[in-house]
Amino acid sequence: LSPVMFSGEAKCFLKYVFFSSGCRYVSKAAAKAQMEFDYDGPSMKTAVPGPRSQELTKQLGDIQNVGAVNFFCNYEESRGNYLVDVDGNRMLDIYTQISSIPIGYNHPALLKLMTNPNNLSTFVNRPALGILPPENFPDKIAESLLSVAPSGMTRVQTMACGSCSNENAYKAMFIWYRNKERGYKTPSDEDHSTCMINQAPGCPDLSILSFMGAFHGRTMGCLATTHSKVIHKLDVPSFDWPIAPFPKLQYPLEEFTRENALEEARCLEEVEDLIVKWRQKGKPVAGIVIEPIQAEGGDNHASPDFFRRLRDIARKHGCAFHVDEVQTGGGGTGKFWAHEHWGMDDPADIVSFSKKLLTGGYYHKDELQADKICTATVFLILFCFHTFQPYRIFNTWMGDPSKNLFLSEVLNVIRRENLLEEVTRSGKALLNGLYELQAQYPGILSRARGQGTFCAIDICDGATRDTILVKARDKGVLLGGCGDRSIRFRPALVFKEYHVHLLLNIFNDVLANHK
Amino acid sequence: LSPVMFSGEAKCFLKYVFFSSGCRYVSKAAAKAQMEFDYDGPSMKTAVPGPRSQELTKQLGDIQNVGAVNFFCNYEESRGNYLVDVDGNRMLDIYTQISSIPIGYNHPALLKLMTNPNNLSTFVNRPALGILPPENFPDKIAESLLSVAPSGMTRVQTMACGSCSNENAYKAMFIWYRNKERGYKTPSDEDHSTCMINQAPGCPDLSILSFMGAFHGRTMGCLATTHSKVIHKLDVPSFDWPIAPFPKLQYPLEEFTRENALEEARCLEEVEDLIVKWRQKGKPVAGIVIEPIQAEGGDNHASPDFFRRLRDIARKHGCAFHVDEVQTGGGGTGKFWAHEHWGMDDPADIVSFSKKLLTGGYYHKDELQADKICTATVFLILFCFHTFQPYRIFNTWMGDPSKNLFLSEVLNVIRRENLLEEVTRSGKALLNGLYELQAQYPGILSRARGQGTFCAIDICDGATRDTILVKARDKGVLLGGCGDRSIRFRPALVFKEYHVHLLLNIFNDVLANHK
Repeated sequence: LSPVMFSGEAKCFLKYVFFSSGCRYVSKAAAKAQMEFDYDGPSMKTAVPGPRSQELTKQLGDIQNVGAVNFFCNYEESRGNYLVDVDGNRMLDIYTQISSIPIGYNHPALLKLMTNPNNLSTFVNRPALGILPPENFPDKIAESLLSVAPSGMTRVQTMACGSCSNENAYKAMFIWYRNKERGYKTPSDEDHSTCMINQAPGCPDLSILSFMGAFHGRTMGCLATTHSKVIHKLDVPSFDWPIAPFPKLQYPLEEFTRENALEEARCLEEVEDLIVKWRQKGKPVAGIVIEPIQAEGGDNHASPDFFRRLRDIARKHGCAFHVDEVQTGGGGTGKFWAHEHWGMDDPADIVSFSKKLLTGGYYHKDELQADKICTATVFLILFCFHTFQPYRIFNTWMGDPSKNLFLSEVLNVIRRENLLEEVTRSGKALLNGLYELQAQYPGILSRARGQGTFCAIDICDGATRDTILVKARDKGVLLGGCGDRSIRFRPALVFKEYHVHLLLNIFNDVLANHK
Repeated sequence: LSPVMFSGEAKCFLKYVFFSSGCRYVSKAAAKAQMEFDYDGPSMKTAVPGPRSQELTKQLGDIQNVGAVNFFCNYEESRGNYLVDVDGNRMLDIYTQISSIPIGYNHPALLKLMTNPNNLSTFVNRPALGILPPENFPDKIAESLLSVAPSGMTRVQTMACGSCSNENAYKAMFIWYRNKERGYKTPSDEDHSTCMINQAPGCPDLSILSFMGAFHGRTMGCLATTHSKVIHKLDVPSFDWPIAPFPKLQYPLEEFTRENALEEARCLEEVEDLIVKWRQKGKPVAGIVIEPIQAEGGDNHASPDFFRRLRDIARKHGCAFHVDEVQTGGGGTGKFWAHEHWGMDDPADIVSFSKKLLTGGYYHKDELQADKICTATVFLILFCFHTFQPYRIFNTWMGDPSKNLFLSEVLNVIRRENLLEEVTRSGKALLNGLYELQAQYPGILSRARGQGTFCAIDICDGATRDTILVKARDKGVLLGGCGDRSIRFRPALVFKEYHVHLLLNIFNDVLANHK
């Protein structure tokens, strides 16, 4: 246990000033951790969206699609775990901008960073990082992204968002695979001429193997590996790439070890079959991409053993292994990377990230560097090819150094406040609470599951799930859905046991009233 | 002529403190405009990259591909038109981070914005704009992007970068086209089930028609429409989409009217042929995408008449017409959008942007809104489809409001300082200077061309071009290449006649010494 966890600890009783009714889930006192920038609890003034939000939604509707807008926010007044809306409602935020706010709103450390005059220029002059990086760029990358690099990875490429990170990771895998196929020889004249008109062999018929239920983004390369919802994919042309079944496990995992192992074996067998089949079709699998926990697809877990064996299959068939940590990365599972739970020395060839990392990008093994392949070639064939090796993974901005500044500070806070240990502790309390609620409301809840605070629970059906989300919001808790009928919990890393009990009490109230 | 243009005007003679040799291109005095945040001229202390840049490149090389790194920059010391490097070299920047710095480095208006405490929260709390926008978002969009909306467009979707802007614009065109094909009826069960496994009809075999020499980005959808360089495309799977020839015009345009008209007619005929051919192949063209000036591909121009007729062809064949203004947009051509030079009331269905706009995104006609199609349908078939209309064009961040803040201020500066008029004036001086240099060095230079300061000139061959770029840099002028052997000029909007003459003098020195 960390000594910091108890600093400022004070026993206090939750104030339920805003509850109209409902039984209490906990009667025990909750330890309130020191967070001077947090509020005491939710405070609701109107239904959500309130009148001001509705007015602004109408206004924005003249400019943009507002079908997905929940409400408008007052980010100035938001603090820590609490999101404040434009009607003065203060909600405990367990969704955190689709899991992208690492240490809560308006964290003092980030505000302080903004007032440092030395940082101004980084915000005002956005460089083309690939050609004209700022002086402090290597140091900033070292103290931010490299300081949390996954095992075995010393190289990282920044990008501006999750989709661009995955798109470029796929390109790196294709380039790597084709170089292997060519025997690291210079591309032929035919490669050159055909690629300019989108034809093979220059634009080869390679594929990426993905999993049903996966979400890897919505740009066209990513979208060909995304299979979570119709709305993402309908009407957009795609690639004929193999899609393997993701294990459908029974929860709690420890109670269904045998059944789950069989299910995982079935899926892995299918993966190998698909790799062989697509090779025979002339569309070899250059890479396998997978999330450590399928998030958008419904918070679907698999065992460390599954991932270990999948990694072995990738190696056996000469496919790169890409772990997409865009949603799972950054500490929510109690480790900085969810794949660290697998306990492997050599877990992946590529690890992509975004969201809580604030910048996008991907780590990669040395051999996955687009211009590194040359070193494996003999000298005489090098010259011609070497001249165009840079610029293969490239775009104008290649990320944004102002986001790296924030990330450095976020990592400082995570270390200083031992937030990964806090997450582990809060996560246990949350999952235990969900188990208890599930036992209490077996007609509504099932399949409570999670790692760290990256938790989820299933509701009896999609319509009930949506109703419960709205009711929870009206009581001051902001949650998100995933899959067909799951609720996902995605708090910031500053979500303490105190907040867990607050959440569980309100969730319990909603469920009790729903009965 | 604007009254502002003459404010602070002072006749002064250029100081050539750093020239070792070379004849002068101009002997006339140059009007120096008022720019208190600019330097007087270049100042070179070392060769570029200097020792500190080389040291940092080595350091960064352990982490990333540094094949494309020119040198490292001191952005704190950079001002206006001048980029300062880590070795203390100060260069007149005519490349501006691949054309993405609108009003020069460290503009006082942008620095001031950073010190306003009301803006802090926008930087520190990046929202998921599609679901939880900040209160000021509609106003900020109205005063920034909408205030410069292209003719006929009142709707805009923000995105984080140019590639994501084009990817999502393509998706909007595909969705629009499929809705037309379906007769605005609810998608079928087969549409739903097939799209989840990347198959038609859910993922239809539609195409986007692009042009040889085009550059629209490097993510996989964009990349299928990019045809400027092998390095962008080699080894990446692509789509079988039609690629039309872009007119190869002779310059100066006014001297080759007849020849160029024939060439443009040839290309337009090919466009129609391809549309018919791809329809027959079962891969109908949903949209046509084109740059007003092909930039990466070599600064290739076409006449307003060409674009007008292309727009008519798109309309005739039921294809959306997408004008990609990622590099041309934002004022460099003397109008805010390059396509405004075509003088049309209804120039496009979609206009995408990024770079100088600081945020990415695209404007679109009402009917290209992914969820808007329903309004054209009859009531009874609406319900089911309408429920999933939002989230079709969506991602976590959907842009970045902190970039909108900067954009608002950039637009204020452009208006206050009449920068579009300045660009037109500087552009004339630049193009006239290039014409004169071309007459002076016919063995080296040809095909001077441009609109506003968005100018280019061809060098006799690629190797000479690269040598000249390095020599110019060593004399304190930072230029970029494009195409096989062109030099492109991409100054910021604060590039005045004074800077034009400075540039032309140095360029002349380089050419004189090269002879």
